[in-house]
Amino acid sequence: MRIIRKTTEMAVWSQAERQQGQRIAFVATMGALHEGHLSLVREAKKRGNRVVVSIFVNPTQFAPAEDFAAYPRNFVRDRGLLETEGVDVLFHPAAEDIYPPGNQTHVEVKELSKILCGARRPGHFQGVATVVTKLFNVVRPDVAIFGEKDYQQLQIIRRLVRDLFLDVEIVGHPIVRESDGIAMSSRNEYLNADERKAARCLSRSLHRAECLVRRGETSAKAIAEAVVAELHNEPLAVVEYVTISDVETLEPLEQIRQSALLALSVTIGQARLIDNKVLLRSSGE
Amino acid sequence: MRIIRKTTEMAVWSQAERQQGQRIAFVATMGALHEGHLSLVREAKKRGNRVVVSIFVNPTQFAPAEDFAAYPRNFVRDRGLLETEGVDVLFHPAAEDIYPPGNQTHVEVKELSKILCGARRPGHFQGVATVVTKLFNVVRPDVAIFGEKDYQQLQIIRRLVRDLFLDVEIVGHPIVRESDGIAMSSRNEYLNADERKAARCLSRSLHRAECLVRRGETSAKAIAEAVVAELHNEPLAVVEYVTISDVETLEPLEQIRQSALLALSVTIGQARLIDNKVLLRSSGE
Repeated sequence: MRIIRKTTEMAVWSQAERQQGQRIAFVATMGALHEGHLSLVREAKKRGNRVVVSIFVNPTQFAPAEDFAAYPRNFVRDRGLLETEGVDVLFHPAAEDIYPPGNQTHVEVKELSKILCGARRPGHFQGVATVVTKLFNVVRPDVAIFGEKDYQQLQIIRRLVRDLFLDVEIVGHPIVRESDGIAMSSRNEYLNADERKAARCLSRSLHRAECLVRRGETSAKAIAEAVVAELHNEPLAVVEYVTISDVETLEPLEQIRQSALLALSVTIGQARLIDNKVLLRSSGE
Repeated sequence: MRIIRKTTEMAVWSQAERQQGQRIAFVATMGALHEGHLSLVREAKKRGNRVVVSIFVNPTQFAPAEDFAAYPRNFVRDRGLLETEGVDVLFHPAAEDIYPPGNQTHVEVKELSKILCGARRPGHFQGVATVVTKLFNVVRPDVAIFGEKDYQQLQIIRRLVRDLFLDVEIVGHPIVRESDGIAMSSRNEYLNADERKAARCLSRSLHRAECLVRRGETSAKAIAEAVVAELHNEPLAVVEYVTISDVETLEPLEQIRQSALLALSVTIGQARLIDNKVLLRSSGE
């Protein structure tokens, strides 16, 4: 596995591979890798014959009061995991290379960035959209895989690619969960044993919503209330939002017709955790 | 000359040419072509072996009160001129193709967009940066030529390309002037005979500044005052701004050390006219 730190070197490598007809698949990460990331890497290996994984804890997507400094970093462990997966290039740029002196260009996906997590994390998705545009232009992948756990991020990237005519295929990959249902997240590292157990309430509440929809419930309000009630059963959980939205535009829905995104954000201890599920009415069950 | 209207067709043409090793040079215009544009096209022919010229009157770079509807359009004449110059592709997209339903992504070059024309035309340079990013990603040129008459626009595009790692070389091309010194502009069409004559005050005032610098004047304030005085000799001229700035960051200067950008905006009748000159101290004269 080659480790590349310079954007110029990354671009040269990528251009040479493309000219030889190789198909480049890309996974962008902030490191602190877990099985969720590795499932994206395995998907990338299926979809390209060269795999590039970036590790870059992007400062511009953290608000001043957020956990940029505390965000878990373990480069040696991450490198070993990616090597084992057979990744071709680990791209690990310095912040000064991604944001050189005088840098001042921002990319923003307006409406999609204002809602859900965007309403609570001002500037977050502008930071994401900008860094993803930069990484795409340096790595120039044919296909890029993003996890559905960050569902809003995935939709923002899809929109960005369409609007700016970026020549990359975006693939969403299902959430990977622990055996007890908790969605894998680097921020789970912030949880102590009690909090870890409490965090099960997120997936449990999604399951509750799924059962209601199966039984014929279509009112977004009724479903959201049931989810909030389920979360409130857990004393350590502080609910930030529970929303039921259009699966593409993420605009709030009142009634579920065919499908809807149930998304939630809950703080437990120091960890702000998110989870989601696409609710489908026509499941035939 | 091939005329392409669809972004998809443009991207396919461009990819095929690139794969055959052709070097694509690009000139982005809003039509109403004059000698200034044609000089960019001739420069493009020197720098690439395929030349693409776009004609797109970009709605998002006009503020609501500005002249989008009135902006001169003459496609048949423009097409003839480009054909004569030996252009390979005239790219003439529809607004709905550049801004499809749901489009919501914006590119902004922050600091550089706030000053000079940007301070008077809110949203203008966000419109420019966004459309240029889109056009670059569709046409994928190796090199793009922009006129120095829109000096601020040129610096914004240079910054954008650097910040977003776009793989295109940006070339600035000198202002083309009429025999009486007036900078060529599609907006000169708005001028009647008296106003046309009055518009000479712009280049005359730039010349005045140049003479002062040659004689050793280094105070930006003194030079700007002389320029404003020269402009005020013309009763039809309404001065919007006269600034002396760093040639790259466009930040205001108090003293001219080696070089400075003198930029001005003047309204005459219905026409908002801009002009500029890079003042050089070490001219040896």
